[in-house]
Amino acid sequence: MENFVIYNPVKVHFGKDVVSKLGKAATPLGKKALLVYGKGSVKRNGAYDQTVAALREGGVEIVEFDGIKSNPVIEDVDKAAALGRSENVDMVVAVGGGSVIDSAKYIAISIPVDHSGWEFAIGDKKPSEALPLIAVLTLAATGTEMNAVAVVQSDKEKKKVGNGHPLMFPKHSFLDPSFTRSVPENYTAYGVVDLVAHALEGWFGDGDATLTDKFILSIIREAMEYGPALMKDPENYQLRAKIMFAATMALNGLTAQGKKSGDWGTHGIGHAMSVLWDIPHGASLSIAFPAWMKLQKERIPERLIKLGEGLFGISDADETIRRLEEFFASLNSPLKISDMDAPTGPAAKEELLEVMRINKVSGFCHELSEEDHRVLVDSMM
Amino acid sequence: MENFVIYNPVKVHFGKDVVSKLGKAATPLGKKALLVYGKGSVKRNGAYDQTVAALREGGVEIVEFDGIKSNPVIEDVDKAAALGRSENVDMVVAVGGGSVIDSAKYIAISIPVDHSGWEFAIGDKKPSEALPLIAVLTLAATGTEMNAVAVVQSDKEKKKVGNGHPLMFPKHSFLDPSFTRSVPENYTAYGVVDLVAHALEGWFGDGDATLTDKFILSIIREAMEYGPALMKDPENYQLRAKIMFAATMALNGLTAQGKKSGDWGTHGIGHAMSVLWDIPHGASLSIAFPAWMKLQKERIPERLIKLGEGLFGISDADETIRRLEEFFASLNSPLKISDMDAPTGPAAKEELLEVMRINKVSGFCHELSEEDHRVLVDSMM
Repeated sequence: MENFVIYNPVKVHFGKDVVSKLGKAATPLGKKALLVYGKGSVKRNGAYDQTVAALREGGVEIVEFDGIKSNPVIEDVDKAAALGRSENVDMVVAVGGGSVIDSAKYIAISIPVDHSGWEFAIGDKKPSEALPLIAVLTLAATGTEMNAVAVVQSDKEKKKVGNGHPLMFPKHSFLDPSFTRSVPENYTAYGVVDLVAHALEGWFGDGDATLTDKFILSIIREAMEYGPALMKDPENYQLRAKIMFAATMALNGLTAQGKKSGDWGTHGIGHAMSVLWDIPHGASLSIAFPAWMKLQKERIPERLIKLGEGLFGISDADETIRRLEEFFASLNSPLKISDMDAPTGPAAKEELLEVMRINKVSGFCHELSEEDHRVLVDSMM
Repeated sequence: MENFVIYNPVKVHFGKDVVSKLGKAATPLGKKALLVYGKGSVKRNGAYDQTVAALREGGVEIVEFDGIKSNPVIEDVDKAAALGRSENVDMVVAVGGGSVIDSAKYIAISIPVDHSGWEFAIGDKKPSEALPLIAVLTLAATGTEMNAVAVVQSDKEKKKVGNGHPLMFPKHSFLDPSFTRSVPENYTAYGVVDLVAHALEGWFGDGDATLTDKFILSIIREAMEYGPALMKDPENYQLRAKIMFAATMALNGLTAQGKKSGDWGTHGIGHAMSVLWDIPHGASLSIAFPAWMKLQKERIPERLIKLGEGLFGISDADETIRRLEEFFASLNSPLKISDMDAPTGPAAKEELLEVMRINKVSGFCHELSEEDHRVLVDSMM
């Protein structure tokens, strides 16, 4: 095992009707909140109404910023931060999925400064203060509700980057699985893929951490047992709860303990597809992970075999990859770029390679060369 | 799944030589520390010297209180709190195992008040403030380093009670597995039993939480894989690290998520033995758990069968209990009271029943009647 630190001060309130406690949590944190959300689905699933009611009950004034996109852009972060500054808000409340909460993390550290949030995202600047952040989660997927990391992209720079800082932890996160009932079928599936991908990035990280590996397998097996069941029974609260909880556990630090780091190369590949063709993050990962595994199976055969043993009771790397593809397919998540609304000709291939090059797509543990990029793109097209 | 809250702000520093960072962590917390430890083993394993050096480096003055016993008593807590008050300390630093850290938790909330810590322990009073607490762990067992609970006993009252409050979380815990190398063979074994027992208390808790159950099985399997290996190779740092990490995960909240509560009836049985005959906590649990399972197997057969499937791949409650006993025996942890230095005649039996009665020994999920107590005691003698 490697030396490591566990630190996660987020207070997670999980279960039915937990947003009713949000007012009491918000009152000590501030008097005027910037309420950040997306394109309005939170108004249909009840999350918006419940959050507004709770904030009012807590005596907190509200300024709204809506319209955050999936694959969120830094331009929105900067606009929201400017609004928050001019309105003198002292708290940020995010209602939505990963895109909204990730944006809100950058907004909360950008309001106190006079430069673009992009400088934090690319690591040119480090935050020294942050407004307190409360998150109300409506999509089980990214795990951002219980970590200090956020991903954002710049359309201008064709870059999508993830960065983090302890000041980016939410103070409170409210996770009511009921809200996720209104998530469309495809995004429900992408959420399951995303959580499995997070666990896999930990699995392929460096460092011998046997208990952490068992936790990782537990999370993936949970998703494999209950993800397809949820697709068939999307109104089922208990299934929604299991997947929401698994997604939180997949990226709250648990899968990293005792390891040097996760790999995260596959996420880099996925981000390139998302920034270029706006492919949903989870969808990009069910395309990218099998391709990445096929590339790596001669290089790290024992890791793939061990994964197959833990998940399927088989000692065969090829069969493990095939079963994982089968699992993604059972969720109707794509296995190829051609399954999505994206171009696939030779020009598109070169375009994707160019974005991968600009973003220096590689893993922390398993480096990817430009030749590897070409093999990956061929495999995904 | 039940509604639940995740909140654990302890910063855990895990690995080789992590105590070198303690000074930097302590400086912002205070200027004068009450340094609490036990009977001197921390002076042999290096933990005391490293902690003192780090505190000095951090500019923190030190007042010492030593002599905390295993199965710690409230009288020591009160004496230490009185010393802390008179010396105007503003921080508590605990160096030792569960007994020392548990005592320090009560000391940290008792220094600001003018009554015995026992009133907190039995729940008559709730703390409203606490001195910051830093823990340096030297024994892998109780998990107290990453939770807000502490157990203490009153010899006078013949009671041993566990209680908790968010103010009892350590601010920082330093876990260097090297320190546990000097732990004697029997206490190393008892630590493994203790962590398995904590995971089992979660397993037998109420509430359908499938991922949490997988985490629980992961922790027990880790202990079963590496606990016996550690007994054969006690100097092995990696094995020490695996067991230390597993013990922390077994009682930091992870095994309770989505459940109503753990059961904790077996711990009550064990505490009765400890308070009466000073039987080490872990040893009392390898005696109590098989007896408890034998009592419960007709009442909750499916839970025992599922445990056997998860741990041993067998669907038989009796065989599951037998294998668990085999595991405890492989560690040389006792299965009967007669294996320990304790009386076992009819008078002793009545004495134990009396202590169980005084302590109202029962589980949160599976109640124990006085008739059950008699069956249990017969089974353990």
